Amino acid sequence: MPDLRRDPIVGRWVIIATERARRPSDMQRTAPAPQGGLCPFDPGNEGMTPREVYVAGRPPSAPPNAPGWKVRVVPNRFPALKIEGELDRQAEGIYDRMNGIGAHEVIVETPDHDRAMEDLTPAELTEVLFAFKARILDLRNDLRFKYILLFKNHGHLAGASLEHAHSQLIALPVVPRQVIEEIEGARRHFDLKERCIFCDIVGQERKERARLVLENDEFVVFAPWAPRSPFETWIMPKRHQSNYEAEPKERLALCAEALGSTLRRLGGALGKPAYNFMVHSNPLRDAQSPSYHWHIEVMPALTQVAGFEWGSGFHINPVPPEEAAEFLRKVPG
Amino acid sequence: MPDLRRDPIVGRWVIIATERARRPSDMQRTAPAPQGGLCPFDPGNEGMTPREVYVAGRPPSAPPNAPGWKVRVVPNRFPALKIEGELDRQAEGIYDRMNGIGAHEVIVETPDHDRAMEDLTPAELTEVLFAFKARILDLRNDLRFKYILLFKNHGHLAGASLEHAHSQLIALPVVPRQVIEEIEGARRHFDLKERCIFCDIVGQERKERARLVLENDEFVVFAPWAPRSPFETWIMPKRHQSNYEAEPKERLALCAEALGSTLRRLGGALGKPAYNFMVHSNPLRDAQSPSYHWHIEVMPALTQVAGFEWGSGFHINPVPPEEAAEFLRKVPG
Repeated sequence: MPDLRRDPIVGRWVIIATERARRPSDMQRTAPAPQGGLCPFDPGNEGMTPREVYVAGRPPSAPPNAPGWKVRVVPNRFPALKIEGELDRQAEGIYDRMNGIGAHEVIVETPDHDRAMEDLTPAELTEVLFAFKARILDLRNDLRFKYILLFKNHGHLAGASLEHAHSQLIALPVVPRQVIEEIEGARRHFDLKERCIFCDIVGQERKERARLVLENDEFVVFAPWAPRSPFETWIMPKRHQSNYEAEPKERLALCAEALGSTLRRLGGALGKPAYNFMVHSNPLRDAQSPSYHWHIEVMPALTQVAGFEWGSGFHINPVPPEEAAEFLRKVPG
Repeated sequence: MPDLRRDPIVGRWVIIATERARRPSDMQRTAPAPQGGLCPFDPGNEGMTPREVYVAGRPPSAPPNAPGWKVRVVPNRFPALKIEGELDRQAEGIYDRMNGIGAHEVIVETPDHDRAMEDLTPAELTEVLFAFKARILDLRNDLRFKYILLFKNHGHLAGASLEHAHSQLIALPVVPRQVIEEIEGARRHFDLKERCIFCDIVGQERKERARLVLENDEFVVFAPWAPRSPFETWIMPKRHQSNYEAEPKERLALCAEALGSTLRRLGGALGKPAYNFMVHSNPLRDAQSPSYHWHIEVMPALTQVAGFEWGSGFHINPVPPEEAAEFLRKVPG
């Protein structure tokens, strides 16, 4: 069972997931071995993964865990957290721990081994974003979970261990501090101004345009004012909405359009970089919030977290967001 | 002039340091080119660096910026922050910025190009730790600075761009959030218990011994309860002390003994890994604090920050600290 441990000084939780462990002598970071053999995400290899929990594109009458799907969601074979059990919060002297309860799932974005997320058509990418929503709606019924983080690691330098296009979700028994900080910061702004700070940001970015990358009827894409890494790019709904899972499919289609274009622009500007993206949404089962606003943060993996960043929480970024946005506006999306 | 920008939602500061910029097409992360040519930190090449601000080992009568030194501190040639100017805090719509004022210095740890920090004798390493103190005592006279972060990036995977053994310091016009979180967390514990939480941790680690790596008369080395990365290791004075610069040289000598042994053990256990370390101390000119306690955090660069870590602030660690400590106890230090 993985262990969730809380740092006693700053309250940061860490997942000690020994079943993902390697021997100390294997810990050196090296390029992944070329993936000889079978890809567990290819059609026909469905038996190599745990049984699917969601599928799009296969007729309901067809047998599960077989080809014919367009998007397929399966539990992670090497989960960071385990789905069965109780939290069992305990003290160990001055320290706190609980069992590593949670869900860890993989969203296989396409049956085609050779297509990346940015190669998907808007309709195909819409099905991926709809699968995100469907998994939130299912998992939020489990009252042990407080938050679901949806994210993507693309490329070895961004932490991906498999090439086949996939995103991931981790359902957590606590709301992660990164999200709490956003929620609390947004609430302070709301208390002061009675406005959503994300709506204010959308307003200023659309007016100033210096950091704007693109917009459509429902979404705006821009380089944030204080980006942690070069070419960090945020995708935000123009209309106020705190909960990702509340978006109807028609709006997710416009989000897919914006996300696909963003990834193609980053690919064109930076030569198909490794990247991460994270979906930040309101905690599970929280009602609509007037102060919080869901969004996607895309981070190309171009710089390293080093001593200064670890020790300060500051980031050093050599590329102003205005320059990054200008570059991204010019390349084809 | 670098730009310090504050994220409007969570308050995180980012340094936009354009003079360190490369073209977007150069942004791909690759191994560094082999360092042909001259090393700016080798004796005889003192003219390749900015003029030294501190030196150990050279007689006062000898000319500066010439060989004969044992430790040499120089301003960084490509500083993240600039020493001249005023902060000039400004609003830009809803956003906040100030000039990137600060100091960025390099501590060259040895004249010998081929020796790493862990190869230094205890006496040599003591001179390095004393140089850290001397620079804090000098820079704290500049009232624009609120904090000095001392850190080391060793190896390419940990963000080092030069091989020659060196540490760095960055003097900042704001106290970084990572430190504020520690100070505030420690103060909450003190308010509740009237004890320093770091002293409590030292007590529990020395008693339990499961995470203990080594100790000497003044310092204890252990794997923390909730490590962010495999083999993260903390070095902490046993006696309560909030301010690094208040330590007399005799105690820094025992810190050097503990640090050298820690680095050699990590090198033996993990095959000379890239690593970072950070010195966390009380903010500049703050009086002795009963609740805060300086320490060094050593982090081997073994895992990658990926989507889940960026999005949640959680870390996933496959190696329990008890296993890491047992391993580190067994290898020669």
